[in-house]
Parts: sequence; C-alpha cells; structure tokens
Amino acid sequence: MPTIDLNADLGEGFGRYRLPADEAILDVVSSANVACGFHAGDPVVIRHTVEEAARRGVAIGAHPGYPDLLGFGRRELAATPPEIEAYVIYQVGALQAFCTAAGTRLRFVKAHGALYNRAARDPAAADAIAQAVRVVDPGLAFLGLAGSELVKAARRAKLAIAEEAFIDRAYAPDGTLLPRSQPGAVLHDPAVCVDRATRMVLDGMVEAVDGTMLPVRADSLCAHGDGPTAVELLTAVRKRLETAGVRIAPFAR
Amino acid sequence: MPTIDLNADLGEGFGRYRLPADEAILDVVSSANVACGFHAGDPVVIRHTVEEAARRGVAIGAHPGYPDLLGFGRRELAATPPEIEAYVIYQVGALQAFCTAAGTRLRFVKAHGALYNRAARDPAAADAIAQAVRVVDPGLAFLGLAGSELVKAARRAKLAIAEEAFIDRAYAPDGTLLPRSQPGAVLHDPAVCVDRATRMVLDGMVEAVDGTMLPVRADSLCAHGDGPTAVELLTAVRKRLETAGVRIAPFAR
Amino acid sequence: MPTIDLNADLGEGFGRYRLPADEAILDVVSSANVACGFHAGDPVVIRHTVEEAARRGVAIGAHPGYPDLLGFGRRELAATPPEIEAYVIYQVGALQAFCTAAGTRLRFVKAHGALYNRAARDPAAADAIAQAVRVVDPGLAFLGLAGSELVKAARRAKLAIAEEAFIDRAYAPDGTLLPRSQPGAVLHDPAVCVDRATRMVLDGMVEAVDGTMLPVRADSLCAHGDGPTAVELLTAVRKRLETAGVRIAPFAR
Amino acid sequence: MPTIDLNADLGEGFGRYRLPADEAILDVVSSANVACGFHAGDPVVIRHTVEEAARRGVAIGAHPGYPDLLGFGRRELAATPPEIEAYVIYQVGALQAFCTAAGTRLRFVKAHGALYNRAARDPAAADAIAQAVRVVDPGLAFLGLAGSELVKAARRAKLAIAEEAFIDRAYAPDGTLLPRSQPGAVLHDPAVCVDRATRMVLDGMVEAVDGTMLPVRADSLCAHGDGPTAVELLTAVRKRLETAGVRIAPFAR
Repeated sequence: MPTIDLNADLGEGFGRYRLPADEAILDVVSSANVACGFHAGDPVVIRHTVEEAARRGVAIGAHPGYPDLLGFGRRELAATPPEIEAYVIYQVGALQAFCTAAGTRLRFVKAHGALYNRAARDPAAADAIAQAVRVVDPGLAFLGLAGSELVKAARRAKLAIAEEAFIDRAYAPDGTLLPRSQPGAVLHDPAVCVDRATRMVLDGMVEAVDGTMLPVRADSLCAHGDGPTAVELLTAVRKRLETAGVRIAPFAR
Repeated sequence: MPTIDLNADLGEGFGRYRLPADEAILDVVSSANVACGFHAGDPVVIRHTVEEAARRGVAIGAHPGYPDLLGFGRRELAATPPEIEAYVIYQVGALQAFCTAAGTRLRFVKAHGALYNRAARDPAAADAIAQAVRVVDPGLAFLGLAGSELVKAARRAKLAIAEEAFIDRAYAPDGTLLPRSQPGAVLHDPAVCVDRATRMVLDGMVEAVDGTMLPVRADSLCAHGDGPTAVELLTAVRKRLETAGVRIAPFAR
Repeated sequence: MPTIDLNADLGEGFGRYRLPADEAILDVVSSANVACGFHAGDPVVIRHTVEEAARRGVAIGAHPGYPDLLGFGRRELAATPPEIEAYVIYQVGALQAFCTAAGTRLRFVKAHGALYNRAARDPAAADAIAQAVRVVDPGLAFLGLAGSELVKAARRAKLAIAEEAFIDRAYAPDGTLLPRSQPGAVLHDPAVCVDRATRMVLDGMVEAVDGTMLPVRADSLCAHGDGPTAVELLTAVRKRLETAGVRIAPFAR
Repeated sequence: MPTIDLNADLGEGFGRYRLPADEAILDVVSSANVACGFHAGDPVVIRHTVEEAARRGVAIGAHPGYPDLLGFGRRELAATPPEIEAYVIYQVGALQAFCTAAGTRLRFVKAHGALYNRAARDPAAADAIAQAVRVVDPGLAFLGLAGSELVKAARRAKLAIAEEAFIDRAYAPDGTLLPRSQPGAVLHDPAVCVDRATRMVLDGMVEAVDGTMLPVRADSLCAHGDGPTAVELLTAVRKRLETAGVRIAPFAR
C-alpha cells in the first residue's frame, strides 16, 4: 500500500495575531512544520500548537526561519552561514523543549520561506542548516525540496532525508519551483492541486509550466497552511489520495 | 574544605553590541548565567559564550528573562504565569541546544532581572519558572535568591536547589535586596564587596543597611558581570576566598 | 443639534498579520486611533490606514503604546516617565510623517492599552505623554478617559482636550473602567452597547455595575475595533445616534 | 576659503547598549547621521543625541536603515521599494519629532548600511528613499555617495543634494567603494586617512586600490563613528584640514 506524508506550516501566530485554521489543518496533515519564533510563532502559540499536534499523533517538525517577523521570513536576508547555523540551533532547541514538555519528541527540521529557497540553491546555506541539525540531534530527519541542495547537504551531514513536492506551486521545466514573483507561481484551483497531488504519488510525475512531464519522487507533499482555502485543499487532497488507496502517514518515525 | 560557587551574568551582547569583559569573567567564575535572547543575547553570542564556558569547565546555566531587549529585562512586565512558563521553556530549550552542540550540557536555570525580582516575591511567577524547568528537564538545578519564593517554588517542583547571595547589593533588615531605585542599593567599593563575600562564606552572615547582622546560607555568590569593574571585583573576591582556604567550584554537578 | 465623535483603534496589523475589519470600521467612525509601530502597526500598514482615513475625511490620531508587540501593548511595563515621553515623541513623529505624505495632518493623540490605563491613574505617566505631545506639536488635541489623570495632565500641558467614554466597557461606581481581568468588564451584547451609547450622549449618564447612575460628559465615544463584532456594533451605534438626531463628527477640527 | 562638511553616524546605541564615543564625535563633526530605531537607536538614545547635536550646532540628519537590529542594518534585506519608502517615511518622521522637541529642525537624510549600499546601485531602491524624503519634507537635503544612483534619484525627486566621499574606505577603479567583504576595504591607518581626506578636499582626487587617481567631488566627508579610533581619526582629519585653511561646516543650511 503506497504511503505518503502530508505536511503544512503551523503555529504561525504571534501574540494577539492568530492564523485561525491551525487546528482544522492539524486534523488532516500527518506532519506539522511548527514556526519557531523568528519569522512567526511565539512561546505561547508554539506550546499550544505542539500540544495539539501531539494529541493527534501528527509528527512535529521545527520550521526555523530568518529573524524577520515583519517580513514573515519571506524576504531574503544576507545572513552568513555561521549566523544561519546559530539561528537554526537556537530555534530547533526551543522546539525540542516544547516537545519534551508535551511528552513527545521533535521528529524533523524543515527550513522556512526565504531561508528554504536560498538553501535549495546555495550549498553553503544548506550545509549551515544541516550542520545545525546534526550538532543538536543527528537523529532528526531533514525535510527539503526534492532534488535540491537542501537534500544534498543533508546527505553530506548523514541525516535521514525526506524529500517533498509542492501541491500548490508551479514547477519550472528544470524541476525548480517557479518564483512567487512570477504569475501563476501559486496554484489556486483546488481541483488542479488535487490532480497534481494524485499524479505525484501514483505516477511519480508532475507537469511543468511548459507542459513537460517531470519525474518527482516525494516522501511528503506540502501545501501552504496560511491561505484562505488551505483546509479545503488539504482535506480534498487527503480524501482523494485515501480513495485511491494511498495511506497518509508521517515520513518521520 | 569549604566550597562556594561564584556566578555572573554572561553572553549579554546582541548583534553589533558586545559587553567586552565576558571572556575575562569566564576565567574567574565557576558558573555562567547565559542570556537566552529575550532580554539580551543572540544565537551567535550565545553559541560563542557556551563554547568558551565549556572550554574552561565553567558550569552553564540558562538565564531567561522577559522579552524586553530595550529594557534589558530590568523592567517589570505584567506577563501572566502561563506566558512566563512558555517563555522559560523556550529559552531553556535554546540554551540546551547550544550546550549539546558544544559537547556539554546545561546544568541550571536562573531567572534574570525583573523576572527574578518578581518571582522572588510572587509564588505564582516562581511556580511558573520552576514548572517550566521541570517539564523540560527535571535534572536541571534551580538557582535563586536565598530564602525567597524562588527557592520555595523549586522545592515544590522537586528540583535541585542552589541558593545565592549577592556580593555587591545591599540587604534590607528582612533579608531581601534593597531595590535598585534606592540609594546605596548597589555597592561599588571592591574592598567592601570582598569583605562581605568572605563573611558570607566563612561566617554565614551579612550586614544589612541598618547594621543588623543577618544569617545567610549560600551555595553560590553572585556579582554583576556588566559593570565597569566586574572583572577586578570578581578576581579580588576569588583571590581572597582562595587565600582563606575556600574552594571555588560549581554548585551544579 | 447634538454632535459626538466616534473613535476606534485602527492600523493594528503587522507584516503578514492583518486585522481585516479596518476599512469597514473607517466607514462608520469619525476618528481613527492609528497604531504607531510599538504595540502594533508597521510602516506599510500605517501608511495604508492613514491614506484610507484621509480619503474618507476621518480625523487621524496617533495611538502610541508600549514597545510590546508580543503583548499588543496590553501588559503594564514599568517604563519610566522619561522613557514614556521619548516613546510618545517617536511614535507621534512617525504618524505625522505619514499624514504629511498623505496630504493631511495629524489631529490628536490617544495613548493605547496598558499605557492608557496606567496614565489614567498615574499623574507622572500622564504628564510624560502630555509633555511629549506638547513638545512635538502643541496644536494636537489630547484624547483621554473622561475625568481621568490623562485629562488633568493635558490641562496642565495646555493642550486641547477631548474626553471619551466607552460603549462596550463596564464602569465601576467611582467612574473608572472595570479592569479587563474582572468578569463582565467587556460588554458583548450590541443592543446593550447601543443603549448605553445613546444615554451617554443624550442624557449624559451611564449605569455602573452596581446600578448607580453616573454622570458622564464625553466628546467622543470609543468602541474596540478588534473584536469580531466591531463593525456591526459601531454601525448600529451610529445609526441609532443619527436616528435620534445626533450628528457624528470628529471632535478635533 | 574652501569649506567641507564632516559627517559621522551617531545615536547608534540601544537600551542598555551604548557606543560610548558619541559625545566626543559630536565635538569634531559638522553633521550627525542619527540612527532612527530600525538598525540601531531607541527613542531615549535618539532624543539625547539630537539634543547634544543641537547644543553644539551640529546639523542633524536622519539615518534610516533596514529593520534589522540584529544585523545592525548591514545585511541586505530583500524589502520591496514600497516597503523601503514606508520605512523611510516612518524613520524620518520620528527624527523630525525629536528635532522639533529639541527646538531645532532636521536638515538632511542619509540612508544607512546595506540600504545605502543597495540604493547606491539600484535606482528603484534609491527612488523609494528619495520619494519618501520628498513626501515628508521636500526641503530636506539628501546625502549620498558621490556619483551614485542615490544622487541621481535625489535629482529626479528635485531634492537638494550633498555628495559624500569616504575617508576610511578603499575605492575600486570605477569609483565605487570596495565591498567590506574584500581585504583592505576599510582603512585603519589614521595617517593614510588624513592624507586622503586632504587630497579629496584640496585636489578633488582619491587614489583607487590599483593606484589610479580618481576625480572626486564631495560636499561632505564621512568617517565611521563606531570604530575604536573614530574620535582620533576625525579629530586628526579636522585639524589637518583646518591647518590647510579649509573650513569645516555643515553642507545643509
């Protein structure tokens, strides 16, 4: 029986600000990328998110980002690799403590936003993230864009690797994600996203913007948790996959 | 042979800002209270401080404070006990990760500044801090003002306790510290501080502002690490104590 | 024809986080208290809010708060009066610049949250705010709780004063607001709020929690803009007052 | 009699952190670029710096930077031009208010750090800064790297322009500054800096790293205020220039 993980970003509130769909999303995903307080998330929000994920058996990952709350970690910041390494150690440690407090443990690390995008192309940034994970806990899995520098760095650091594909993002013919600045980079039609998710899992293929069929090998599928239709999209994807005989389960055991 | 711990606040830089005496202070203390990024400290500074402390065999403690970098954690902030508990879990977790990365482990937790002062009098705040420590690692020791609510909360949480006395602060006749807002609250004459430290350790006594002799039982002596004369003061205290046959060693084993 | 001002807090988003009702609220109020970046608000949000308020002829006020984004400025912070004065100068200046950029000008200042509550009782804090306003622009009006220390400080600073009453908050028998920590402090029934608003304006009375009828003289009525029913409440209040022959217009000309 | 302005960055403390040479530097420069709270500076520090500058007749400029206190505004951040424009309006407004409070007025704006460096090459970023200045006060002068996009944008915005050259930075043969990441980018020998300053003013020339003599036309000379030898360097430059018959005076009148 084919199995796939479904992951989404969670715990991205801050103080008075809450992104309301968190609990509904936790009901449909198998892995939660929990914000760590730099691009979003505060200790109270993180604690609550970790407890809710643990209660549902959702695998908990740390989702470290740049220290840019104002930009939600989505703006490239010219931090050096040693700075990135220290930022990731700090954030992963904070998440570990909340997992311990909730009687569970942290399973994986996935970089967020602009840090993720940079490290997908930049080996030095990717190595900084992978090294940070390794020195904190070499048993943590490393979730990254399939085929990217993130995955190569995790391999160099001898970490367990999970590769992910994006349900709601357009792919360039070379297999990279189309930048958000380009029209059509984010897919909004749930029916299209559901179809793509199914083909990714069952056929190992995704159609690029120019019609090319690209091979894709994913341990996990990602959809964005902060859009207005995130819950419906994830619910529909899960339902279709289960109907097609695919089991949804955390990649990180 | 009598033994005492000597602790000071360290790692209190932030980005471009550094408090320069850190390494000199690490050469004379036996325990380091390392800032955790809320009232001071950033991931790069913390990592460096932890590595330097580990290299010297100085016991490392987390020094969590209020999220008030602008006020250096020295202004009372009306955070609720659940907020305080989450803030402490977060900060302790971050420090643990840097200790693991440096091949060592975190030994104790001591609250900082206004959070410390509040929790010394306020059982609910003290319990929030002690509970946070307990749920992250019940093996961590808890360092607090001798005889205060901090110590009582640690006892309720069944944590190992270390009580401290202040070398460079004036005591009220009831054994509490004179508030910084009062004249004479901070002692600046190194000779006076050295004498007080010696009497605290050898006689178990300290003279209050009104001349009363107060009994004091301390596992650790604290002097402020951020004053202009911190290094000289700590060096003189250490020298005098060693001359008097006292061994300086971490309370937390 | 009786006239009253209707004010609400606006521009309280931050980066990715937006409080969505802003534009609907601007359609019903006559004065906007615009967050200044310390407790909420960022330059992009502030600019947009000021432009939208100016477009509608809504009077723009600066709404300075404590530097506590995490607590939304609702937690008391032991800042000194000179710190408060500098914080208010800074925030008022920032708002003035956005008003100038939008081709309009700033009309008034109203402190936010815990800073407002403290200064309503604490003359030193109230004087710090009033002095800050005075040294930046003595032509700015000062909006504060009717009968409170805020109003007295504005009088000492020779500022134009507007006094406000709260539509959706319970009053103690002595005319102060019931603290939010007490049950019933915030009124949620729109019908009740609408009745209270009408009596405040037409009869100059408000009923305290114990049934006492208190005299109240208000130039402006405030309702909270961040609750889920803020728009409906404000719309209903405006409609009822207009039906009763009351004109809604800015107090600050 | 030839006249030149001497400018340095000031007010770059934050809370507990102070850069101690500020007052000594104010005694030798004719213009102060005052940090505005984003990359450095807080309301209390800014107020004090503005008052000290005003007392000495030093011309006050706003020195807006990226919102990156942790990186001291020295790391490129991919903010969009509308974000930059809003950030600059906000920061300039805050500085204006402190100038008004001190009985003086703001004279000029100079971007800081990575924002300055980006805008020196990137017309869209430069236009965002210049537009921000124009919409707040078209009477403010605009200080930027001689010959750069900053100066061209100020010309497009019809602002009064002052061009500056750097005493303690190496120049590439094309007239741009050598990036700090390259060896030799910052000059540390005061004698060399003093000679360069003199030649810039008297001969209008500066020697590039490869020995080429470049023409340079500067209204102002800049030296960094945060290095350990800033005071000596600036004092020596001022003395040598005055001895050579050059008058030191603000460019902005």
